[in-house]
Amino acid sequence: MFKIGVCGYGTVGKNLVSHFLKYQDLISNNCNEEIAISIIADRSIQKKKFDSDSIQFSSDILSVVQSDCDLIIELVGGVEIAKELVVKAIQNNKSVITANKALIAEHGDELFKLSNKHNVYLGFEAAVAGAIPIINSLSHNMLNENILSISGIINGTCNYILDQMSSNNKDFSEALSMAQELGYAEADPTFDVGGFDAAHKISILAMLAYRIQSPFKNMYIEGIENIERMDIDYAKELGYTIKHVALTKATDTTIECRAHPVLIHNSNILSNVDGVMNAVRTVGNRFGTSLLYGQGAGGEATASAVISNIKDFCIYKKYESNKKMNEDYLISNRSITDINAISTQYYLRIFANDVPGVMAEITSTLASHEISIEAVTQHEPLNSDKLIPIVMITNSVSHEKILSSINKIESLNNINGKVNLIRVFCDND
Amino acid sequence: MFKIGVCGYGTVGKNLVSHFLKYQDLISNNCNEEIAISIIADRSIQKKKFDSDSIQFSSDILSVVQSDCDLIIELVGGVEIAKELVVKAIQNNKSVITANKALIAEHGDELFKLSNKHNVYLGFEAAVAGAIPIINSLSHNMLNENILSISGIINGTCNYILDQMSSNNKDFSEALSMAQELGYAEADPTFDVGGFDAAHKISILAMLAYRIQSPFKNMYIEGIENIERMDIDYAKELGYTIKHVALTKATDTTIECRAHPVLIHNSNILSNVDGVMNAVRTVGNRFGTSLLYGQGAGGEATASAVISNIKDFCIYKKYESNKKMNEDYLISNRSITDINAISTQYYLRIFANDVPGVMAEITSTLASHEISIEAVTQHEPLNSDKLIPIVMITNSVSHEKILSSINKIESLNNINGKVNLIRVFCDND
Repeated sequence: MFKIGVCGYGTVGKNLVSHFLKYQDLISNNCNEEIAISIIADRSIQKKKFDSDSIQFSSDILSVVQSDCDLIIELVGGVEIAKELVVKAIQNNKSVITANKALIAEHGDELFKLSNKHNVYLGFEAAVAGAIPIINSLSHNMLNENILSISGIINGTCNYILDQMSSNNKDFSEALSMAQELGYAEADPTFDVGGFDAAHKISILAMLAYRIQSPFKNMYIEGIENIERMDIDYAKELGYTIKHVALTKATDTTIECRAHPVLIHNSNILSNVDGVMNAVRTVGNRFGTSLLYGQGAGGEATASAVISNIKDFCIYKKYESNKKMNEDYLISNRSITDINAISTQYYLRIFANDVPGVMAEITSTLASHEISIEAVTQHEPLNSDKLIPIVMITNSVSHEKILSSINKIESLNNINGKVNLIRVFCDND
Repeated sequence: MFKIGVCGYGTVGKNLVSHFLKYQDLISNNCNEEIAISIIADRSIQKKKFDSDSIQFSSDILSVVQSDCDLIIELVGGVEIAKELVVKAIQNNKSVITANKALIAEHGDELFKLSNKHNVYLGFEAAVAGAIPIINSLSHNMLNENILSISGIINGTCNYILDQMSSNNKDFSEALSMAQELGYAEADPTFDVGGFDAAHKISILAMLAYRIQSPFKNMYIEGIENIERMDIDYAKELGYTIKHVALTKATDTTIECRAHPVLIHNSNILSNVDGVMNAVRTVGNRFGTSLLYGQGAGGEATASAVISNIKDFCIYKKYESNKKMNEDYLISNRSITDINAISTQYYLRIFANDVPGVMAEITSTLASHEISIEAVTQHEPLNSDKLIPIVMITNSVSHEKILSSINKIESLNNINGKVNLIRVFCDND
C-alpha cells in the first residue's frame, strides 16, 4: 500500500481530499495499487472539519516528513516554506507532487537533482496551466519529438483583464477591479499582471522541452500594465487581438524564453482563448502544431491535475525507479537569448501633432534604422489636444534596433509622450 | 531488449521507421529499455528500398507473427486483413500498436478481451485524431474523472470542405475536388464525407470514457453532403459556423453517441478549428472544459502518435501486466440513446412562395408541435423562381418531434421542396 501525506488544506487541498476519498477505490484500481491518505497537515488544521477517522491530522506541516507516508502532496504555497518541506521530504526518501510553479521555476534545478539522488518521484502536472495536460504531453506524447517552440496564454488574470478591455470596453483599472472582485486577481496583482506567474510557468516548460536550467532569472518579462484600451481597439482594426503570451523557442545555439503582451492575428486559434481560460501551443518537428486548452486554475481543476500525478508516482516506483528521474536533465547548456538580439514585428502607437510632414519624419526615422512598415493607420485626434494617434506595424526587427529608433522618434519635435511598443506574435513561433 | 515488427510500409510506416532509426537511442533511453525494429513486412516490400542491414524484411505480413518480436505495429489498414494479423499476433502473445480506427471501432470489444486473455498490450493513440494526445489524456489525466461529454471535429476532410465553402465561397463539389487534389479526400470520399470515419473515432473515445461496447453499429451518422453554401452563409449571419462534429455524452441511464453537422456559435472555440485541423473537446466534472487541437492525420503526425505508444507498451510489460489491460472494460451496460429521443436546437431552412400568410402557416405548424422559434430571418428571393428562403433556429426539441413537424411543413401548399435541417451545437455538451 502507498500512503499519501497532504500538506496544505486550502481550496486545492480540500478539493483533492474530498475527491480522493470519494473515488479511492477507482484511483487505487487505476493505479494498480492500494492507495490511501494517511495524514493531512495544515497550520490551521484545528479550525477545519473532517469526517474521516482513518486519517491523522497535524498542524505541523513538517511533521509529515517524519510520518510513514510514501508520497507527500505539497499544497502549502509560497516558496521558502514549500522548499524546506520538499527538500526535507526528498531527503527522507519520500516522493513529492506539487502544484507550486514558483517552487519548480525557481528551485527545480536543485530539486530535480535531489530527487535523482534519493531516487524518488517529483511530479508537478498541476504547476503549469492547471487541468491542461501539458506536462504529461511533453513527458510522454512529445517525448521523442524535437520541440520547435511552446507559446502559452498561461495567466488567467492577464487574459481576463485583456478580454474585458476588448469585449466589454473596460479600462485596465476597471477590468482589474472586476478580476479582483471575482477572485481572478490578488489584492496585490503585480505577480500576475506583471507577467511573473506566466514566466514561472514557461520556465518549467522550457526546462522540460529543452532540458536546460530554469531560464526564469535570465528571461525577459513584461506585464500588461501599459496596454491601453485604444491599443486593443487599434489592434482590432488591423485584425489582431492583444494577449499576454509566454513563449520559449529553440534557435541553433540558444533558447529564447520571454513573457510579454503580443498582438495575435485573429486567424490564429490562440486569439480565441478568452476569459480566464489558458492554452498552450506546442510546435514539434513531426506532430506539427498542437494546442491544449482548458482551465488554468481553480481548486477542482488543480486537484484533478494533482491526482493525475498519483499514477505517475506509482509507475515511477514500480517501473522507472531504476532509471534516475530526469537523469538526462541538463544535457543542454544552451543559454537564454538576450532580448536585445530577438527580432519580432512590432506594433507602435505614436501621438503626433497634426502638422504637415510629421508622418514623413517618423517614417524616415524608421527608414534610417532600416525598419520598414507593414501597415499604418492614422486616426482622428482623440481629444481637444489635437494629437493624432499613428499606429504602425513594422517588419521583424531586433529589440535593440526598435528601441533605438523609438528613442529617436520620441525626441522629434512633433511627437508627444512615449511611443507604445507591443510585439506581434509570429505564427511560425 | 524489446523487438518491434512493423507491418505495412506505406506513408506512416516509412515515417515511423525513419524516425525510429534516427532516434533509436533517445527512444530507448526514454522508455528505459533497449528497443529495436527487428522486422518490417509489406506485401510490396521488394519494391522498396532500405538502408538498414540489422532489419529483416518480408513480403508476408503474417510471417511477423512467427518472428521473435515482442511488439507488432499494425499499419496495414483495412479491417479484415488487419484483424487477422492483430488476432494472430495477440494469440502469439505479442503486444500490438495500431493506427487503425476502423479495426478498434468495429472489433475493439473482441480485441480488448483477447489482449486481456493473453496479457499483452494493445495501444491505439494514433487511431483517433493523429497527434492529438486524446487517448493518453483519457487514459491518464482524465482517468479519475467523470467525463460528461466529448465532442470532436475529427474528420479533416469534412472540416476542410466546410472551411473552403465558408472562407472561399466554394460549392460542396468544388471544395471536394480541391480536397481530392490536395490528398485530403479519397477518390471515393463517402467514408469521410458521410461521417463514418468520425463515427469510428468517437466510438473509440466513447468506449474509453464510458467503458461501454463499441457504439458504432448503434449510433446515428450523418454526413455533410446536404450542406449547401447558402446554409453556411445564413448560419454566419446568425453568428454560427457549420462544422461536422462527432459527440458522445452521458445521460443518467444511456450514452449518446452521434456524428453529424452542427451549427457552432462563434463564441465557442470549436468554431475556430479550420482547415484540416482536428480538435477534441472534453468536459469533465472536475477539470471543466478542455480542448485538444492539432493535426489529425498525415504520415509524420500519425507516426509520432504510434511512437508515443512504445513507452506505454514498456510500462505495461514492466508495471501493469499483472493488472489485466482494460480488465474493467465493459463495466457499463448502458445502451446508446435512440436518436429520436435526443433533443437539440435545430436550424431549419425552408423555401416558401412569397405570398401573404406563409410565415404564419410555418410558425403555427411549429407551435402545434410545441416547438418555439429562437431566431428567424427571411431573405430576398434567391432566383427568378421567387422562392424566399426562411431560416429559423428552434428551441431544443427531440429528433422525432422535429421530423414530424417538418413533414407537416413540407406538405404545406406554399412550401417548396425539402426543409434543410441541421442541429445546433449546445455549449453545455
